[in-house]
Amino acid sequence: MYAIVADEPFKLSEGNKFYKKDFEKPELNDKDVFVKVKSIGMNPVDTKTRQTEIKHPPRILGYDAVGVVEDVGSEVTSYKKGDVVFYSGRADVDGSNATHQVMHEAYIAHAPKNVSLNEAAGFPLTSLTASETLFEVFNISKNKEDNKGKSILIINGAGGVGSMATQIAKHYGLTVITTASKDETKEWSKSLGADIVLNHKNDLRDEFKSHNIENVDYVFCTFDTDLYYEVMIDLVKPRGHIATIVAFTEKQDLNLLKAKSITFTHEFMFTRALQDLDDQYQYHRYLSEISHLINEGVYKPTVTEVMKGLSVDNIFKAHEKLENHEVHGKLVIEVEE
Amino acid sequence: MYAIVADEPFKLSEGNKFYKKDFEKPELNDKDVFVKVKSIGMNPVDTKTRQTEIKHPPRILGYDAVGVVEDVGSEVTSYKKGDVVFYSGRADVDGSNATHQVMHEAYIAHAPKNVSLNEAAGFPLTSLTASETLFEVFNISKNKEDNKGKSILIINGAGGVGSMATQIAKHYGLTVITTASKDETKEWSKSLGADIVLNHKNDLRDEFKSHNIENVDYVFCTFDTDLYYEVMIDLVKPRGHIATIVAFTEKQDLNLLKAKSITFTHEFMFTRALQDLDDQYQYHRYLSEISHLINEGVYKPTVTEVMKGLSVDNIFKAHEKLENHEVHGKLVIEVEE
Repeated sequence: MYAIVADEPFKLSEGNKFYKKDFEKPELNDKDVFVKVKSIGMNPVDTKTRQTEIKHPPRILGYDAVGVVEDVGSEVTSYKKGDVVFYSGRADVDGSNATHQVMHEAYIAHAPKNVSLNEAAGFPLTSLTASETLFEVFNISKNKEDNKGKSILIINGAGGVGSMATQIAKHYGLTVITTASKDETKEWSKSLGADIVLNHKNDLRDEFKSHNIENVDYVFCTFDTDLYYEVMIDLVKPRGHIATIVAFTEKQDLNLLKAKSITFTHEFMFTRALQDLDDQYQYHRYLSEISHLINEGVYKPTVTEVMKGLSVDNIFKAHEKLENHEVHGKLVIEVEE
Repeated sequence: MYAIVADEPFKLSEGNKFYKKDFEKPELNDKDVFVKVKSIGMNPVDTKTRQTEIKHPPRILGYDAVGVVEDVGSEVTSYKKGDVVFYSGRADVDGSNATHQVMHEAYIAHAPKNVSLNEAAGFPLTSLTASETLFEVFNISKNKEDNKGKSILIINGAGGVGSMATQIAKHYGLTVITTASKDETKEWSKSLGADIVLNHKNDLRDEFKSHNIENVDYVFCTFDTDLYYEVMIDLVKPRGHIATIVAFTEKQDLNLLKAKSITFTHEFMFTRALQDLDDQYQYHRYLSEISHLINEGVYKPTVTEVMKGLSVDNIFKAHEKLENHEVHGKLVIEVEE
């Protein structure tokens, strides 16, 4: 068993500092599940984390996996050897860029059965992020009737998180407005359920006008929050709610929120790991629901590209593609070990 | 009938630019109520608005009143001549620094009967602001059982809004932590229901430690948001919610919200006037509930000082007291006309 690791943070322009490292099967704690990883999803958070300080090198990145259970801790009752599971994991433990991974059962659910392993690997992080934002941040009802007439603007609707947020928001009855610019990504976003796809090459205020949209209840930003900060404030309703998953590069004027009593949330999916353990089983609950709705045919896979083989080269190439914004939907790597 | 008005924005250091102006009874629209004002409440928003541009001079400030109905528009059925009503009003119409005022019925409720008129005048703006923040921003349940174990930190608990927020949060079952510094204001805050009063002369992080408080679910800032921005972020729980009613003087780093997925709202009570008319009756509903709970003896008056007579001098003096932070609870002016 091996992982792709790095000993220090680096920029891609410095060359490929990832390397392959063998490891032994670790001891399992009572609630741990030991997984033979079959496919991993790649996310922008990989590229951001790669450039942050490493406290205990080497570091294994990777926040999406599907795999087969090989062993379980003494208190695990929900999973047994041979089960296929999927998970995102947490930011502060060894990641999924590996042939095998240990994960606490709170973070895991049974993978959907009617999609391929590669397709399943594309779901966890984006689904968890979108679910938290919609149901906990925006407090959207799970009763579709309650959401009738409510609308959400998803900035960068064709991205990984945007693709899942679109599907979930649509399923729960919201009017979904997304942004994209290329024909390919516009079509993609529509195919996932977007009612209206705006062109984010134009000022979104003008796009709203030309589509006769006055304002929206919710804005979910998955791309360049600084660029969209004032636009989002202009487009959300009085007492509306804006959330972002993209860190700012500059300070902002919070007084702009005042006239309309706007609420702003900086959503971060790994926050829950700071909370008590009971609460961390919420990851399991979300993933179980997602898995169920994939099996029901409600949510479609968002994977658009599969790389074959967990290698130093492929991990580096995947980071390049993400940093160059070459990916819509999700890029996954099939482990092939 | 007369009002205290000004023709231009001014600072107190420029001298008293308020003057008395007589006016005639205006035409009433269908849903308007014409009120003989008996007592007015003074608020920090008066001092802030005094310094803003006047589009159509002269301007009548004043955002709290209790008075007796003298006449009603043709479609008003809930109020009749002789009814005692109270209201805050809205920011964009003539205010309550006057012997008579026209107000749309959506903004009005019957005043409580078991407190004096001066005491009743202290409630509307602070109650509405506190109610919106607790029930709409923080989404606090009206079922006390749901709030068991939940906690709120109210910064400047002895201020006007802080005094009402304390009473309402306590009534609905939250653990209420406030801040104050003088013995008098500490006692005041305790008398309104604060479970713990911290000394805001000290770093609130240290105050939390010395009272064995780990963190709180909600933080409501009613004083100097810039000063408390980072402290509030440190003291709120992961996925917690911070609200302020005090504008910032500087830009802030919104990335500080990320690690704990914190939600931030800039609450502004007059925002609702931007929304559709149906929604504006929410002011009426809040005030009716407040009036009911005052009559039930649940909420105590927060008035600590009464000035006698609606005069140019008294309005100016009241602005001075507010700007010098000499008031805890509420200052009201009895109209005496």
